[in-house]
Amino acid sequence: MSDDTPNETNLIQSLFAPLTLGHPASFGLHDDVAFLPTAATAGFVITQDQVIEGTHFLASDPIDWAARRLVRRNVSDLIAKGAHPRAAFLSLAWPKARPRGEMADFAAGLGEDLKHVCGNCPLLGGDTSTTNGPLVASLTLLGEMAGTRTSPVLRSGAQVGDRVLVTGAIGDAWIALQIRLGHMSASDGLEACLKRATLPQHPPMALADLIAQYANASIDVSDGLLADATHLATQSGAALHLNLDHIPLSPEAQKWCDADPDQSLPRRLLLATGGDDYQPLLTLSPTHAQAFCAASQALGVPVTDLGSVAVGKGLHLRHHDHAVPLPARLGWGI
Amino acid sequence: MSDDTPNETNLIQSLFAPLTLGHPASFGLHDDVAFLPTAATAGFVITQDQVIEGTHFLASDPIDWAARRLVRRNVSDLIAKGAHPRAAFLSLAWPKARPRGEMADFAAGLGEDLKHVCGNCPLLGGDTSTTNGPLVASLTLLGEMAGTRTSPVLRSGAQVGDRVLVTGAIGDAWIALQIRLGHMSASDGLEACLKRATLPQHPPMALADLIAQYANASIDVSDGLLADATHLATQSGAALHLNLDHIPLSPEAQKWCDADPDQSLPRRLLLATGGDDYQPLLTLSPTHAQAFCAASQALGVPVTDLGSVAVGKGLHLRHHDHAVPLPARLGWGI
Repeated sequence: MSDDTPNETNLIQSLFAPLTLGHPASFGLHDDVAFLPTAATAGFVITQDQVIEGTHFLASDPIDWAARRLVRRNVSDLIAKGAHPRAAFLSLAWPKARPRGEMADFAAGLGEDLKHVCGNCPLLGGDTSTTNGPLVASLTLLGEMAGTRTSPVLRSGAQVGDRVLVTGAIGDAWIALQIRLGHMSASDGLEACLKRATLPQHPPMALADLIAQYANASIDVSDGLLADATHLATQSGAALHLNLDHIPLSPEAQKWCDADPDQSLPRRLLLATGGDDYQPLLTLSPTHAQAFCAASQALGVPVTDLGSVAVGKGLHLRHHDHAVPLPARLGWGI
Repeated sequence: MSDDTPNETNLIQSLFAPLTLGHPASFGLHDDVAFLPTAATAGFVITQDQVIEGTHFLASDPIDWAARRLVRRNVSDLIAKGAHPRAAFLSLAWPKARPRGEMADFAAGLGEDLKHVCGNCPLLGGDTSTTNGPLVASLTLLGEMAGTRTSPVLRSGAQVGDRVLVTGAIGDAWIALQIRLGHMSASDGLEACLKRATLPQHPPMALADLIAQYANASIDVSDGLLADATHLATQSGAALHLNLDHIPLSPEAQKWCDADPDQSLPRRLLLATGGDDYQPLLTLSPTHAQAFCAASQALGVPVTDLGSVAVGKGLHLRHHDHAVPLPARLGWGI
C-alpha cells in the first residue's frame, strides 16, 4: 500500500494493516503491490465505486458512514452479480482540512463493514494521499462467483418470458435524503425511513448464491428502479413490463404515497426514480422465480414480482391496469 | 463501469469504451463489473495509485498530463516488481467547475499511455462521478509476472552481499518541480530537466523481464531515492550502504551540483530526496548484477551501481569516501 501523506507512514500500519486480517497477499501493506494467487478460482468479478464528500455524503456526516457507504455501494454490485467479495483495495484522498484523527473512524467503519457485510473480506492494498478539496474514496472489490456458476450474472441476460423480481423495499433512501436536505419533514412517521436508509441497506451475502443459481440477468438498484430496469432492458435487447403498484414500499413510504390520492402515482414515481436502494433487480424463468422466492424468503429477504420480460424494447409501465407514460427522469444519469 | 455524472451516460461509451481495446472481460463497459478469467495466470500483482489536482499536478497543467502521470505512477510499481500490466480500472472524480470537454483529453492521454507505455493494457472498468472539489483519479493495475517467476520482487528480498543498482537518472523531476513552482530558474541549462521530467520518465516494459529474472529486491523510486532505499533496508532487515557520488544525474543536474563546490553535497542530497523519479532501485547478487547490467544496457537503459547490502540495518551514506550523516528528511512520507 502506498502513502503520500507527509510524515504519516505509520498511519497505514496502525489504521489499515489490521484490515488485511493477516492475508498473505497483502504483504502486511509493507510493499507497493499485493499478489493474489488465482489457482483456486476461475476468475475475478471486479467492481469499483467511489464516495465523494458533497456528492455521495454530507461533510457533516460521521465519517465512518462514508466508509460504510463506500463498502455497501460496492458489495451490492457483487451480490447482484452472484459473487462474494474476496479482496478489497482502497484509494483515499484525505482533506488537509479534516482532522487526521477522524481517519481512525473512517478505517474503523471500513473494517467493520468489510468484516460483517462482506464476510471477512481482507483489505489487500491501495493508496492514501492528501487533497485541498473534499474527501474522495474509491474501493475496488475482487469477487468470486458463488456456487458452480463460472461467470457473473449480467445486465444482458434477460430472456423473453422471464419474471422481473426485486428484493427488499424501494424508496426509503430517497425519502431519507429529502429529509436530510431539508426538502421533506421527518413527521408523519417518515423518521423511520431516515433511520433505516441513511446508510445503504444491503441484502445478506447469501443472496449472491441464489442469484448465481437462478437469475438470467441482474443489476443492483442504484441509479433508480426505473433507470436500472431500463439498463437491463437495453442491454438484454428486450422489453421490461413493470407494474408500478407492485413496487415494494416500506409501510411509512406506502402511507406517504396513500396520504393524498392525487399524489399517489407521482409520489410512487419519485420513489421509483430516487435510487440508492442497493437491492438486486433480476429476471428469472417463471420456474426459477418460484424457487428463488422460496429460498430468498427462507433467508428472511422479501421478494416482489414486478412484471415480465417481453419481445420489444425499453421500459413499459402500468399502474392499476392503466399504461403510464415514462417520466422525463428515470433516475441518476439517465 | 458505473457513472454518477448526471445526463452523461454516453461519456463512458464515447470516451472510455474505446480504451477497452475490445477485451471481452470489460463487457464493453456496459455492466457494473468486469470479469477477468484466471486460468492462464498464477496470480495477479495489483497496484493502485492516485493523482490529485493540487497535490500531484497543477490545476493549470494540460489535463492529459494528469492522466499520463496516473498511468506512469502505477506502471512503474509493476515494472519494479517484475510484472506486466494486463488490466486497468479507473476511478474518476471530475470537478463540476472543469469543462466537461476536457474529459476527452483526459481519456486520450490515458488511452495513449495504456497503449504505448503499458503494452496495450485494456481499461476494464471503473467509476466516474463529479465533485465540487479538485480532480481526483485513481488507477488500479492488475499485472502478471514476467518470465518464469511466479511471485513479485518485493522490498523485503535483499540479501547480504547484494549489489544495489538504480536505472536511469535521479533528480530531474525535483528540478522540474522547483522550476514549475517558481523556486528555481530555468536558466543554466535546467530547462532540459523541465522538458524531460514534467511527465514522469518510465523505463521500457522489457525491464520488468530482467527484474523478474535477476533481482532479489526492488522498489520504484517515488518517495525519494534515500526514502525508498530505507524502505528496502527496513523490509529486508539489512543495511544499505550507498555512495552519494555514484548517484546517476543528468548532465544538467550534474552541472548544477558542481556549479558551487560548497553546495555540491547539499544539492546532491536534495536530488536524492526529491522523489518522482520512477526508476527501479534493486538489489541483486554480484553475478546477477553483472548479467542485469549487460542486458539492461542492451535495452538502452543505463544502470548504475550505488553500493551494497550488508549485515545491520538502515541506510548508510558515503560521499568521496567520507561517511555522511543522514539528512533530516529522506523523501516524501519519511
